[in-house]
Amino acid sequence: MDVIQNVIAGISCLDLEVMEKTQQRLDGLTKPQGSLGRLEELAKQICGITGQENPRLRDKVIFTLAADHGVVAEGVSAYPQEVTAQMVYNFLSGGAGINVLAAHSGARVVVVDVGVAVDLKPHLGLKVKKINYGTKNMSTGPAMTRDEAVRSVGCGMEIFEDELKRGVDAAGTGEMGIGNTTSASAIAAVFTGKPVRDLTGRGTGLDDKALKKKINVIKRSLDINRPDASDPIDVLSKVGGFEIGALTGIILAAAFRKKPVVIDGFISGAAALLAFHLQPKIKEYLIAAHNSVESGHGIILKHMGLKPLLDLELRLGEGTGAALGLGLLEASVKILTQMATFKNAHVSERTDD
Amino acid sequence: MDVIQNVIAGISCLDLEVMEKTQQRLDGLTKPQGSLGRLEELAKQICGITGQENPRLRDKVIFTLAADHGVVAEGVSAYPQEVTAQMVYNFLSGGAGINVLAAHSGARVVVVDVGVAVDLKPHLGLKVKKINYGTKNMSTGPAMTRDEAVRSVGCGMEIFEDELKRGVDAAGTGEMGIGNTTSASAIAAVFTGKPVRDLTGRGTGLDDKALKKKINVIKRSLDINRPDASDPIDVLSKVGGFEIGALTGIILAAAFRKKPVVIDGFISGAAALLAFHLQPKIKEYLIAAHNSVESGHGIILKHMGLKPLLDLELRLGEGTGAALGLGLLEASVKILTQMATFKNAHVSERTDD
Repeated sequence: MDVIQNVIAGISCLDLEVMEKTQQRLDGLTKPQGSLGRLEELAKQICGITGQENPRLRDKVIFTLAADHGVVAEGVSAYPQEVTAQMVYNFLSGGAGINVLAAHSGARVVVVDVGVAVDLKPHLGLKVKKINYGTKNMSTGPAMTRDEAVRSVGCGMEIFEDELKRGVDAAGTGEMGIGNTTSASAIAAVFTGKPVRDLTGRGTGLDDKALKKKINVIKRSLDINRPDASDPIDVLSKVGGFEIGALTGIILAAAFRKKPVVIDGFISGAAALLAFHLQPKIKEYLIAAHNSVESGHGIILKHMGLKPLLDLELRLGEGTGAALGLGLLEASVKILTQMATFKNAHVSERTDD
Repeated sequence: MDVIQNVIAGISCLDLEVMEKTQQRLDGLTKPQGSLGRLEELAKQICGITGQENPRLRDKVIFTLAADHGVVAEGVSAYPQEVTAQMVYNFLSGGAGINVLAAHSGARVVVVDVGVAVDLKPHLGLKVKKINYGTKNMSTGPAMTRDEAVRSVGCGMEIFEDELKRGVDAAGTGEMGIGNTTSASAIAAVFTGKPVRDLTGRGTGLDDKALKKKINVIKRSLDINRPDASDPIDVLSKVGGFEIGALTGIILAAAFRKKPVVIDGFISGAAALLAFHLQPKIKEYLIAAHNSVESGHGIILKHMGLKPLLDLELRLGEGTGAALGLGLLEASVKILTQMATFKNAHVSERTDD
């Protein structure tokens, strides 16, 4: 827990001086001021995060963490639990959505088993950092022990530090875990105080009846466990998941290392929410990639004051939205570093300035 | 006019059979059905447009057309007219926003002078297809003759056909012309019937007083010219611009050749509106890249029933939004052609299917 506390305490505010300089520089580029909208804001944010006037955005890394959820025993997902493991193999052989979209954005995918219910066949591309063989059924008791919750956050920090050695200029979050929207909804309910009904979506595709059941399972999980909103580790242990805790660790570690973090969809959002309640400064380091179809996602983002970049009706997870978001981050930095200035290009400025 | 009529008449409906096959194929990929949202819709649309089950999206081309507008004499822009020519030079030397974002998306930029007010210095990268040295002041009479309007549309078709020889798998529209949001607002008013006030924005950055003046200039232009909404060529000649007419030609020619067209912002939207009123089928070939800050843009898109892909508060034009949109088109086709199927990846399907 000491390591985690040190990382949390070591997260600094953005570099306002560099941001101010970046704004001036953006205003001198050959375009009407502010006309590249959110791309300009992004460039400024990245400069503030990294403290660099010319931030490098070469190594874009998506962390796709997999774990299982005991709550699937309640029938909260349209897919069977074995799909978690099967999809990990799919990530490793390059056939999943995240592989295609990460490659499109020039990002590398780091696949980690932090808690899949079975032992996976060894693979060069697979990191195994298993906290346990899936969580317990949170509708009958805590999903994990407090120690496991702490270890999952620490595990995420380790994963990030490992990758940092290979190079990480920006991180994207991703996950795979049948049943994990159920956990994300429960976490969102604890921190936002909104009704479970508003925070619960169809996940991979539930019908009306199954959705109703899912809502009841979440309510029961909250009733039985009474997670303490003032103690994010308690929330994680009661109704969280190993991949969610580890993503929280990755988010905190990335901010500690002054790297921007692109948050994917609903489950990643729940991990960000845990990080936000551990350290509110984290918000400045986050970029919300997209607005998921999962209804709770928008509520989470609003709670943290984040505005999504994309609204493409995605609901796949894995980091797919983050992959597209990382492409926009790179575009924003290129705007800043590659466009001509009015002066250099001999273009007249506004007549009324 | 015969060529134009032939192109318009030759635009077919999308290939429904290929679209149906594409839908089945998308549903067999390793993801919950429909979970990649608009990327899946895009892939299907591109298959329908091209008639190809595995459409190629290698040659992405942004057509950035430049022309001047006589109406700038009324003080409707924050920038002086010479900026049009200066920005063309900036495009040619690679320092503009469109150069950076097109390169980011792997698209090539085709820069054409279709009506800049001055003769530009020759440059290998510059096509000169000048209709005239800028339009006339539309607030005192027609912007151009009917013959010029016809020639500008035909010119766009020629530009497209020229590029097709080098390869065009998808087209993006772009423009540069100080004063051209004024023209776009007037065109939008004619076709949508909405009040000029709702359709007029700050362009490159007008203050309140200048915005009021701009609105009055547009109203006067419509009063004096009385453009006939049932005759798009009349509308183009009365209140249009050479780059707008040529973009209309490019859009029509691209659809005729079964190529998807990514529409950039407000001015490109006005060109699409002209194309739509010449041939309503065109709508199926269009992809609205983004929702511009210019208030009229959303109204234009709604009028045609198009939903923008991005909402990044862009208002630069040049084709910058289209460049980002082309990146998403490519991502959508990669999803279709590169992802594994449930069967091949040995992933279990839904338990309730």
